[in-house]
Amino acid sequence: MDFIKIAQTAKAASLEIADVEIAVRNRALLKIAEELETRKEEIFAANKEDLDASAKYVEWGEMPKSVFNRLKLDENKMHDMIQGIRDVAALPDPVNKKLFVRELDKGLLLYKISCPIGVLGIIFEARPDVIAQISALAIKSANAVILKGGKEAKNTNRKIFSVINSALAKVKKFPKNVLQQVYTREDVGQMLACDKYINLIIPRGGSSLVKYIKENTKIPVLGHADGICHIFVDESADLEMAEKIIIDSKTQYPSACNSVETLLIHGGFPYKEKLLAALQLAEIKLNYMPDNWSVEYGDKILAFKYVDTMEEAINHINTFGSGHTDCIITRDAANGEKFMNRVDSAGVYMNASTRFADGYRYGFGAEVGISTNKIHARGPVGIEGLTIYKYKLIGNGQIVADYIGGGRKFTHKDLN
Amino acid sequence: MDFIKIAQTAKAASLEIADVEIAVRNRALLKIAEELETRKEEIFAANKEDLDASAKYVEWGEMPKSVFNRLKLDENKMHDMIQGIRDVAALPDPVNKKLFVRELDKGLLLYKISCPIGVLGIIFEARPDVIAQISALAIKSANAVILKGGKEAKNTNRKIFSVINSALAKVKKFPKNVLQQVYTREDVGQMLACDKYINLIIPRGGSSLVKYIKENTKIPVLGHADGICHIFVDESADLEMAEKIIIDSKTQYPSACNSVETLLIHGGFPYKEKLLAALQLAEIKLNYMPDNWSVEYGDKILAFKYVDTMEEAINHINTFGSGHTDCIITRDAANGEKFMNRVDSAGVYMNASTRFADGYRYGFGAEVGISTNKIHARGPVGIEGLTIYKYKLIGNGQIVADYIGGGRKFTHKDLN
Repeated sequence: MDFIKIAQTAKAASLEIADVEIAVRNRALLKIAEELETRKEEIFAANKEDLDASAKYVEWGEMPKSVFNRLKLDENKMHDMIQGIRDVAALPDPVNKKLFVRELDKGLLLYKISCPIGVLGIIFEARPDVIAQISALAIKSANAVILKGGKEAKNTNRKIFSVINSALAKVKKFPKNVLQQVYTREDVGQMLACDKYINLIIPRGGSSLVKYIKENTKIPVLGHADGICHIFVDESADLEMAEKIIIDSKTQYPSACNSVETLLIHGGFPYKEKLLAALQLAEIKLNYMPDNWSVEYGDKILAFKYVDTMEEAINHINTFGSGHTDCIITRDAANGEKFMNRVDSAGVYMNASTRFADGYRYGFGAEVGISTNKIHARGPVGIEGLTIYKYKLIGNGQIVADYIGGGRKFTHKDLN
Repeated sequence: MDFIKIAQTAKAASLEIADVEIAVRNRALLKIAEELETRKEEIFAANKEDLDASAKYVEWGEMPKSVFNRLKLDENKMHDMIQGIRDVAALPDPVNKKLFVRELDKGLLLYKISCPIGVLGIIFEARPDVIAQISALAIKSANAVILKGGKEAKNTNRKIFSVINSALAKVKKFPKNVLQQVYTREDVGQMLACDKYINLIIPRGGSSLVKYIKENTKIPVLGHADGICHIFVDESADLEMAEKIIIDSKTQYPSACNSVETLLIHGGFPYKEKLLAALQLAEIKLNYMPDNWSVEYGDKILAFKYVDTMEEAINHINTFGSGHTDCIITRDAANGEKFMNRVDSAGVYMNASTRFADGYRYGFGAEVGISTNKIHARGPVGIEGLTIYKYKLIGNGQIVADYIGGGRKFTHKDLN
């Protein structure tokens, strides 16, 4: 099908699902979980085709082993994926929430109501479990979705997608075309150009994918390209705490976006040699004064330098950072507060590992992604990031002329 | 000065003002109000230069009288402008609000804190009073601003701007370069391209300006290009109410974006002829079945047609509307609810004039603009629209490794 047709049907579906009650949306989620459970062997078989096709690229060194591993679905991932959908079903309804109720005047009530955004364009690399997760979040929040998966996971994606849509077809009152999938590179180009029908693009993949998308669309993009996270060790830092936090932030999962990449140490910190020795013992390679301070190593490598003042550290972070998550280790609460106020990042931490920057750890129930945007949603984004609001005004014939120049007065009384 | 230099200093100023306490920001606002009061004769003189320069264009028919009127500053507008700044000073601080406080674990506290967006690019047409209003909102919300005013108001803008900045220079602890102004068309081009330093563009002007801006930038734009508002008269509508609301929505201020442009009447509404006659008596020109349903007349002209069902009305609105404000007039509350749920607009009204779509009428204290965006802020936008949030995490050495696989559990307890 023509992309523009797909986008139009997605738009129409978004208008329908916006009025579908939560019971139906939850039934749809549980049905998807059940169907995936029942038909998981088919999915494993499709996944095996993708893995077989990719094996040679790993051998030739054209596909990193880590990508191959992400592509691979096993019983554990399948279980987590299905459980994840049931968890989303158990979340409270993110739409139709009354964000406020205000009496503008007697009998004239203004409601600010959460509602879906509309049509989401989801572009992800070789992680087939993401289809199920993001589909679940979209259904829960009453949005329509157009998905484009990585070509390495083509067979797995098609299969998961057909299982999901056959589940949805069995759910009474659930509209058609809420989830659609596209397959080609040309489709991506058309998706990015389709600002008439698509309201938000969510990329799930490496920074080059995200950068490409951000540079090639005027549709808002929710996500982050880079995770250049910093830790600043203040003069007064506790040595043992600094060791523990830096080692966790760097080594607990080095390829995560919230892993630390740059260490800034106050020149007056008395235990600097001890600290560096401990990091080296933990197999962290220290890169002193690199030419480029904006590298996401994704490995046990840590750029570092000394700074004379906290101001210098803050300036370094605001200049070279990516606005993701940055941490100060200090025993001086006033310095901590100043650092957190002046560092312009989604997450500003005092005395805790940067690895906490994550929707599950923040208690959001499910994570849409992590955003370094300065509008709409910032940091780890829960399902609320897929919602916006509308204003409902209910009156009994009120007109504005009556409120002009000495006429009726607004009461502006918040109710709840 | 070079635009990129201006943008860089604005970025630096935004990082500084983000940490300026509310008392200082409010002092700055009151100082601006005082200084404008003291030096208003200078401003009137500058305004007279602009008016004199424009008079000939009005004569030649090259400038609409309405634009000339907006350009003109008189005692009343000056009074409102100054009072508006004092009103903004009296608002609560929109930043540094704790949006939530969550215990992730004992001694590990997550704060979601409202904060400024950063650098705003404001582009407006010939309305010099807007400089003062938008500057006040930016200062209150701790953002930096780059302003570009209409060339017709050049002298007035320069003067107001210099009065404001001389006031700010007298306020202790208020950072430099928070407000900067640019003047040329080339500057606009550079502003729209400057997504590295500018976080949000706010256009204040006609729909062709807004369309141009939206089409020529990747920076988020807060605003609306069109206001194609609809009223649907349901079968069960009260005749007198329908007359009153439609007349108010169309004639109370026909050039406003929230004025109604299209009337949809249910074919089964028994008083249709009476209704149309009443509208014509109110000097509304009825345009039956126009070729183009997306015209913003800005005048006492109303496109109209009959529809067979409410569904048809909803589809018409979702197809031809601009997502601004749309109204149903009905005595059937279930129909009203369905209409409000299915019409995908920022404002969905039942039995009230579309002219209520306005920040002051909604009780927001001050209006940034009206947005038809589907993310960040929608509908009339108050000062909260100039804020985002950051997450502060404060611990005492917590690391993620301790929470993996059967380790420590998160408590995820919301405090207060």
